[in-house]
Amino acid sequence: MTGTGLGEREIIRQLTKRFQQPRQRPPLGFDDDVSAYPMTRRHWLILKTDSLVASTDIPPGMSLKQAARKAVVATVSDFAAKGVQPAGLLISLALRPPIRPSMVNELSSGIYEASREYHCNVIGGDTGESTDLVIDCIGFGFADPETVVRRDGAKPGDVIAVTGEFGRSSSGLRILLSKNKTQARRFPRLVRSVIHPIAQLEIGLKLANSMMVHSSIDSSDGFAWSLHEIARLSKVNMVVERIPIAQEVETYAEQQKLNPEELAMYGGEEYELLVTIPREEFSELRRRVPSLIRIGRVESGHGNVFLQSREEVTKIEPRGWEHMRSHDPRTR
Amino acid sequence: MTGTGLGEREIIRQLTKRFQQPRQRPPLGFDDDVSAYPMTRRHWLILKTDSLVASTDIPPGMSLKQAARKAVVATVSDFAAKGVQPAGLLISLALRPPIRPSMVNELSSGIYEASREYHCNVIGGDTGESTDLVIDCIGFGFADPETVVRRDGAKPGDVIAVTGEFGRSSSGLRILLSKNKTQARRFPRLVRSVIHPIAQLEIGLKLANSMMVHSSIDSSDGFAWSLHEIARLSKVNMVVERIPIAQEVETYAEQQKLNPEELAMYGGEEYELLVTIPREEFSELRRRVPSLIRIGRVESGHGNVFLQSREEVTKIEPRGWEHMRSHDPRTR
Repeated sequence: MTGTGLGEREIIRQLTKRFQQPRQRPPLGFDDDVSAYPMTRRHWLILKTDSLVASTDIPPGMSLKQAARKAVVATVSDFAAKGVQPAGLLISLALRPPIRPSMVNELSSGIYEASREYHCNVIGGDTGESTDLVIDCIGFGFADPETVVRRDGAKPGDVIAVTGEFGRSSSGLRILLSKNKTQARRFPRLVRSVIHPIAQLEIGLKLANSMMVHSSIDSSDGFAWSLHEIARLSKVNMVVERIPIAQEVETYAEQQKLNPEELAMYGGEEYELLVTIPREEFSELRRRVPSLIRIGRVESGHGNVFLQSREEVTKIEPRGWEHMRSHDPRTR
Repeated sequence: MTGTGLGEREIIRQLTKRFQQPRQRPPLGFDDDVSAYPMTRRHWLILKTDSLVASTDIPPGMSLKQAARKAVVATVSDFAAKGVQPAGLLISLALRPPIRPSMVNELSSGIYEASREYHCNVIGGDTGESTDLVIDCIGFGFADPETVVRRDGAKPGDVIAVTGEFGRSSSGLRILLSKNKTQARRFPRLVRSVIHPIAQLEIGLKLANSMMVHSSIDSSDGFAWSLHEIARLSKVNMVVERIPIAQEVETYAEQQKLNPEELAMYGGEEYELLVTIPREEFSELRRRVPSLIRIGRVESGHGNVFLQSREEVTKIEPRGWEHMRSHDPRTR
């Protein structure tokens, strides 16, 4: 967010205050990755809407097809975090005229590609005109409440784990924004993590089905922010013992004289899952999901997040992903 | 749509072609007011997304609160046309920074007001930044497929009826765009139809529950366009014997030297329902829903729409509501 206006968190806080019905509180809070509507006590409708906006979310070098695919990935990633298969999608497009056939073709190709990847068909949508391209992807699915992994379930004694390494997307975004083609060629995985992200749907379903996971969140708002959300909603402290930084991020950071930990912690649109698991079940779960990386532990506390190195314990700030602008090297 | 780009109909046609699965055709076409997902054979999930965009949908004189309320009304109106009570809403907001607290307050007040009017709580949503304000309102509900009134069910011999008179919103929009305060004071109902529209949810539910209605559409794309949609999808001809023009529209048109029939036929965002009913059941249904106005008949044919006056039969063009621009008197 820019200027003197409200930040996204504050907007959500205000909206939540208005819409939360004291007597008809929805079974998943406004703070969770998805919304839930209890059709029966044992059968929930799961819904998520996530919008991608051209002016803030499409960096140079990303095609419309890639952007449209990514809009779907973002929504699917929230389903992955809760362990719910999306059953279908609706797409709402606000397009900037003049609208060329190739534009519609690219958008529909990207959406179609993602809908195949994650086995959820588009069953409807809406189109309109706007001065800014907005792709709103709405997903729906069905779940037994017992298998839905919430953000507020972390318990002291849990292990914190993630499904992959961090820092690629914030580094890749810097490369795209710099329009430095040599760097883009040198670090293809970093760039690809921005233009062709992957939602961890299969792993998310496996984690939820294990019934071993206490809490889960998708990391699209950044590593640090995701830790803070689990800490705040579960009313615990999170202690990070190891920041899972991707090797290419270390190399890129060294070359650019950047702090690799910063790139990993305060990036975003990195569609890994961050989960907490009872310590005694972690080995068994990692046997089933080998990509899980143990990064820390949950302690009793009041919503704080710490980084524990050999020398010291420091607080990790609740800073998050604040769209492209805050990552634009030109404005830093 | 403007310039040399694609029109909205053509965009929808292209998207439909891409997303319609030949073997998993959704039970309601992409062409209907809402989308449906069969949870079981006798229990459908009904979904609708409809977005309101500031640059094309908010005329001068309309507050943000009114715009937000209208975004909900538009979605609810589609549920009304199918005879389905919306169970809840998700709201996706793309906001233009800097975002003032009063802006968030107005938007949430308008959404909240409409959610109370139509008995459907907001259970989630998303916010982001954009250069254009976009309010995407997503509704969901549940229905027995037998009670869902489709667009493609009109039969030769049916009576065509509407739930109210037409022309108010196109006239009201002209008044707002002209910024003529004297006119706005003189024609309060015309202005009000734009800034405080009403979705015919109660009547839509009553019509569907009667099991007498063959086809139904909400008239938000305009009177003429709605007739054409029923004609095209039901593969029949529609013969209009009487254009239901509101009295204030006649007065306004006379004063402005405009054609009142044009105002009524080619307006839009007029949230009445247009339905077809077997001739022999019409009197009984009007007893139950006294606001129904009989305006014509369905004949066998190939998707044409005619206007029959005492003197002659003329074709009604398939022109529709093309957003604010086409109604702006300055560009006419």
